[in-house]
Parts: sequence; C-alpha cells; structure tokens
Amino acid sequence: MTRLERLKFLNLELPPSPKPQGWYVPVVRTGNLVFVSGQLPLKKGKVAVTGKIGENLSPEQGREAAVHCLLNILAALEGNGVPLESVKRVVKLTGFVQSAPDFHGQPQVLNAASELLTEIFGEAGRHARAAVGVNALPLNAAVEIEGVFEVQEESPQKNAKKNP
Amino acid sequence: MTRLERLKFLNLELPPSPKPQGWYVPVVRTGNLVFVSGQLPLKKGKVAVTGKIGENLSPEQGREAAVHCLLNILAALEGNGVPLESVKRVVKLTGFVQSAPDFHGQPQVLNAASELLTEIFGEAGRHARAAVGVNALPLNAAVEIEGVFEVQEESPQKNAKKNP
Amino acid sequence: MTRLERLKFLNLELPPSPKPQGWYVPVVRTGNLVFVSGQLPLKKGKVAVTGKIGENLSPEQGREAAVHCLLNILAALEGNGVPLESVKRVVKLTGFVQSAPDFHGQPQVLNAASELLTEIFGEAGRHARAAVGVNALPLNAAVEIEGVFEVQEESPQKNAKKNP
Repeated sequence: MTRLERLKFLNLELPPSPKPQGWYVPVVRTGNLVFVSGQLPLKKGKVAVTGKIGENLSPEQGREAAVHCLLNILAALEGNGVPLESVKRVVKLTGFVQSAPDFHGQPQVLNAASELLTEIFGEAGRHARAAVGVNALPLNAAVEIEGVFEVQEESPQKNAKKNP
Repeated sequence: MTRLERLKFLNLELPPSPKPQGWYVPVVRTGNLVFVSGQLPLKKGKVAVTGKIGENLSPEQGREAAVHCLLNILAALEGNGVPLESVKRVVKLTGFVQSAPDFHGQPQVLNAASELLTEIFGEAGRHARAAVGVNALPLNAAVEIEGVFEVQEESPQKNAKKNP
Repeated sequence: MTRLERLKFLNLELPPSPKPQGWYVPVVRTGNLVFVSGQLPLKKGKVAVTGKIGENLSPEQGREAAVHCLLNILAALEGNGVPLESVKRVVKLTGFVQSAPDFHGQPQVLNAASELLTEIFGEAGRHARAAVGVNALPLNAAVEIEGVFEVQEESPQKNAKKNP
C-alpha cells in the first residue's frame, strides 16, 4: 500500500492543500530537508476545533484537532511538490496546544498526530517532537503543528531551479 | 539593487548587530543552513515595543514590533559572517507574539515581517512560517522571531574552520 | 578530558536516556543534523521542578530545571547512537519556560543550560537560542528544552541503514 492508500484505508481524506499566502508558503525545501509551516486544524476551509483544552475543550477534542493539523501538513507536502512517497523520514513535529493555564496533558493531545504518522509512514514516521502549551493561537485554533521532513536526494540542477 | 540597498530604499536601517552573549551566539551555520537566535524588537539597545497585543497594545503596534525583530535578524546575519547577498533562500520564520489570552491575530502581526522579507529578498524571501501566541516574552517584548536561512555553498575547509 | 569526564568533573550525572514513546523518539538524525525531542526536567523518572516561574517558583528554581532538561538532552544523545564526543557543534536550543504572565526573565533561566553547554563542549557549545515563556507545559514542568546538534560525517551506507 502507498501512504496515500493507507490514508484511505484509515478512512481519512486529505483536505485541499494550504495555499501560499503571498509572503509565506506552506512548504520550503532546502537540501534534503522540508520545512512545513505551522498548520491549523482546518477542515473545509474553516478551523474545525476552536477553544482551549482544559477550559472549554476536552483532551479528546484536542486530539481531534491534532489529527486535522497533521492532515493539513500532509496535504501541504502533497500539494507542493513533495509527494508522501518521497518522504524518507519524518524528522520533527512541534505542537502548540492552546491550553488553560492548568492543563498539562499536551503530549496526550499530540499523540493523536504522532500515532497517525506512524500508521501511515511505519518506521520512517517515528519522529522527534516537542509539545508545549500556549495561551493563544491564530483564529482561536485548539492546536497548531509544524513539521520537518527528510526527502529523497534530488539532482543539484533541480535543486538550483527551486531556489532562485 | 543589492538587498542592503533595497533596505535603504525602503527607508529602513539595520540596528547594530546583536552581540554574542558569552554562552550563546546570534548565528550558527551548519552546512548550508544558518540558524538565527530569537530576536526581540530592539532599537538603539532597548526593546522598542513592550506589552501584550490585545491587552495594552494594538495589532498595528505588534506589526511595528515584528519589523524591528526582523531588522535585528538581518543585522545578526550581516554582522556575523552571513551577508544578506549570500542568502539563497529564507527557509523558516517562527514568530512568538506576546498575546492577551483572547487575541488570535498572530498571523496579521507577523505578516509585517513576512511582507518585508519578500520586499527585500524577492522570490528567495518566501519562507515557511509558524505564528503562535505566548503569555510572556523576555523583557516584556511584544514579539520574538527566530529564523532559518539557506546560504551559498562554501568550501569544506572554510566550513571546518567555523566549526572547531 | 572527554565531555563525559567533564560532566563528572562538574559533579553532574546523566539521567537514564529518555525512551522512545512508541510513536515518537528522543533523537532523529538526518544528514549531519540531530534533532532532540523537547526534554522535561526529569530526575529519577519524575519531573524534578514543577510550577510556574514568577508564580510559585523563583528564577533560581527555573535555572535548576533548565539544567535537568539539558542533562536529559545529553542523555538522549548518548543513549541513542550519538555519543557526546561525536558532536561537532551545538546548533540551537529552544527553551520554553512555564511562566507567570508578568515574568520576563526567560533568558536568565535558560542561561543555566547555555552556560553548562559551554563548560562541557567549549567553543563547539556556543549555540543559537530562542527563549520564550508559555502558560502551560507537560506534567506541569517548569521548563522544556529541545535541541539541534551537528555531528560528524558518517558513511552514506550507515546513514541509509538509520533511515529505513
């Protein structure tokens, strides 16, 4: 099964790829590393889960948000010249959880994204991670996740073209 | 126009380059990547914009702070062996906005830095980005921004010298 | 003196290496870069310093937490195929300090980790850094620190084996 097929098998669908915002872009490749911009839990163009975990949201709702963030990361890769099949290793996720000041279960929230990565990528999906709480996120999103990926070598010429 | 000339054309001036702090340094190069330490909105040696967006500061004041952070990032590069002309690609910005718990416009605040990057670097300035809110920043700064840059190849010998 | 000997000389001991958590791992190597997961101030399997700086904890207690985070980072390297002697350069630390909303001394807290790095690694320990405050961290930890390190070249074959 390809990684996209595994997503379908898990009954998950990639959202539309995040669009460049004029000044910044969803994905930048440098050498064999790909940096993906912080993704919100967007679903059909709207933030699917808003609020703070430990205030008006449960950890379970936070986990749902984390999965949406991850799907947007994968969509950002697929839609910007980095097919999931070209990913050699998931290097790092950093997850920011919009939290009440006394909520300390950020790892459990982000585990939902980490588990899914491993289901899709297998061994190559086992990543380094940081999980922190913050008091405010864009658009009142419950979670924001950014990622670093390692991809296959490409020829120096193609690389030069991508970095004008 | 060089990038420094474009800065002047925009009527902007680089502040003095941030100094090494004994234990940490403003800029570290590894291979073709340059990591720049988180920069505060320093102007003439003082934090130019203090406070929280959505509490005692407006988003517009946050944008002003973001521009100062970016100028300090550029000064850190120029003053530490990474001339702006040697930058091949702006890879990533991470922006931390000192926010009231109900302020959710972090992207608009950071857009001021992202826009300026594109004005100075053109296509090479289009970067990946994460924008988050936090409840507290050093010296009560309104914004802190860190960056990752890709620079031109250098010979292995020069590289070895830099990494003792 | 090796770096491990210097640790002993400073009367410091590495804690047990953080274990892989099933879905994520303490350390990922990609090329010559090593990303270390965000580490809490664990000591004998428990968080040694809990609470918020500026609320129920002093900056000095925050510094103690930062040292424990750093020791866990070093233990993560040593225990996962990256001996301290193989580190060519400490590239970057990002430190998240669980802070009261009016505490702004995050750099002083993290300096304890930065100082120690320089004592152990000398010139190679001088790193880029970002220091931010957050309202909530996992397990109510006072500090969380993640790191990026540059290590010696390895042969392409060994590299291939590590990135399945």
